[in-house]
Amino acid sequence: MPATKKRGKQTVVFDSPPILTAWASVVGPKEGQGPWKEDFDQVYPDYLFGEQTWEKAESKMLRDVVELALRKGDYQNTDAELLLAGDLLNQIVSSNFAARELGIPFMGLYGACSTMAEALIAGAMLVEGQFFSRVVAAACSHHYTAERQYRFPVEQGVQKAPSSQWTATAGGAVIVESAGAGPCITAATVGKVIDLGQTDPSDMGSAMAPAAADTIKMHLQDLNRTSDYYDLIVTGDLGKVGMAIAEQLFIKDGVVPNPSYSDCGVLLYDESQGVDSGGSGCGCSASMLCGPLLQKVIQGKINRLLLVATGALMSPVTSYQGESIPAIAHAVAIESQGG
Amino acid sequence: MPATKKRGKQTVVFDSPPILTAWASVVGPKEGQGPWKEDFDQVYPDYLFGEQTWEKAESKMLRDVVELALRKGDYQNTDAELLLAGDLLNQIVSSNFAARELGIPFMGLYGACSTMAEALIAGAMLVEGQFFSRVVAAACSHHYTAERQYRFPVEQGVQKAPSSQWTATAGGAVIVESAGAGPCITAATVGKVIDLGQTDPSDMGSAMAPAAADTIKMHLQDLNRTSDYYDLIVTGDLGKVGMAIAEQLFIKDGVVPNPSYSDCGVLLYDESQGVDSGGSGCGCSASMLCGPLLQKVIQGKINRLLLVATGALMSPVTSYQGESIPAIAHAVAIESQGG
Repeated sequence: MPATKKRGKQTVVFDSPPILTAWASVVGPKEGQGPWKEDFDQVYPDYLFGEQTWEKAESKMLRDVVELALRKGDYQNTDAELLLAGDLLNQIVSSNFAARELGIPFMGLYGACSTMAEALIAGAMLVEGQFFSRVVAAACSHHYTAERQYRFPVEQGVQKAPSSQWTATAGGAVIVESAGAGPCITAATVGKVIDLGQTDPSDMGSAMAPAAADTIKMHLQDLNRTSDYYDLIVTGDLGKVGMAIAEQLFIKDGVVPNPSYSDCGVLLYDESQGVDSGGSGCGCSASMLCGPLLQKVIQGKINRLLLVATGALMSPVTSYQGESIPAIAHAVAIESQGG
Repeated sequence: MPATKKRGKQTVVFDSPPILTAWASVVGPKEGQGPWKEDFDQVYPDYLFGEQTWEKAESKMLRDVVELALRKGDYQNTDAELLLAGDLLNQIVSSNFAARELGIPFMGLYGACSTMAEALIAGAMLVEGQFFSRVVAAACSHHYTAERQYRFPVEQGVQKAPSSQWTATAGGAVIVESAGAGPCITAATVGKVIDLGQTDPSDMGSAMAPAAADTIKMHLQDLNRTSDYYDLIVTGDLGKVGMAIAEQLFIKDGVVPNPSYSDCGVLLYDESQGVDSGGSGCGCSASMLCGPLLQKVIQGKINRLLLVATGALMSPVTSYQGESIPAIAHAVAIESQGG
């Protein structure tokens, strides 16, 4: 078999690490009242953004964040060669309609809340493989579109379980390039679908934690690394309930716990904001990465970051049909250049 | 900007063309009564395949076709390094649950009926980029799951418009490798989302035809080719209505009409099978490619094939909200080795 850039079973190492030359994050009002408000590029004052429906607003949010990232990189839309994007809505319509307006060649992805990591991994590979020199990776979610599609219309006022998570109204976009200045993607681990039989759709953190633990274990094994190689390992979005389970699984798997392990779903909101177990949605890890986390990387506060975005891969129909919740996690190693 | 394998605006040329070393196709009873029954690997006798719901059956179909392709290549599931797959169901659950059973690292895609081409393009790039040496690209659709999700439960017996298409119960899977024998992927064009304002979800062929024409025009322009370079250009799935529009658009675009231009939606069924404008669904182009078309390539009847799979990127919600139907088409050039 010919030599590849794959190491071990599931991990790829980039010989010429693709560069994150620009990025942007946008969030809704609630996320803008949380602990990271200064780190997001744009906080919308309401949930409609001038559109007539939440679904149209969600698509506008993705378009906005992609254009913001391009402008921050001093690019026009036509400078982007490929858009890799996805969201939580049926048929990923937020991304499809954003791609229509943006006019950038488009490949749609679906990885539930892991989509930002999936887009970054695919983007990094297509850039390092010299197929494109400038790719946009993006993802978003909207609280009110997700609630009515996956659960109940919010107008119904259904009480939530303490294990439930709050779908973030948020989006993130990154410009991945073969040349330029910025943090690099140095390695990536594509996850397997893991399902330990959890069936409660109001506790997705518990369903996703085993996938996060499996991908982190594979990543460290494949690269013969210990977890302290990274200044921060951040899963997303397990929330408080899922994060506690992941920490137990790390110990069971013999992964030395990293003292600065955290989770995007835990980080995005303050405890006082009433989000039960924490944040979720494609936009949760996307906005945390493209806001506070990459900000800390360029400030030199984090030199080596492992983003392990997690996704719950069920649908309402599969839950009605008695299926358990399969989950996936993809890991992306982001390092400051020379760091 | 560093040199890339991109030619012109949207097309990539593979220096070391990835090889389709094995493939498989499975179809439902209706597709098995059509003109290509001898060319499919498996015809199911019913629509449940031993499962309790159509949705579970659809997922089983994808699992079956991936395993069939792997076995035809003399591989075990663990020999595959990556699965790239998608389907029409909300949250692409057929693919997610198939990936859970298969145990192969997984990246989920959504391109509606263009998914097979999207998976082949991504797979070819990840293999030629040396990230993986053996990738599975797959897609499927099921008539009865699609009807009740996108339109009406079939039990309701709603009359169909003559422009409507019949979602195929079918799946296809291809093993893409960096070494081995078989036809190669020599070039690919990633499409842009095109929307000329068509709003009728029972006429998706008309909505998708402009995307197919745009991608074919870009592909030929980018490579400085005329359409007769290919022994067959096959779109999918425009159906009769969409194919007639595409042929008009070729003339308008100055694309010399290829005498052997056809469409997977037109080809899959006999006129007598009552499918109105023709077939559709991710499984339509996937099964046509992995059945009769690649069969003709290895028989030497087609040396150069351009598959231009098309997808309508709306959802029922966007149609209810008054949106028109955005569409996409991706082109994959498949050539026999030495052909």
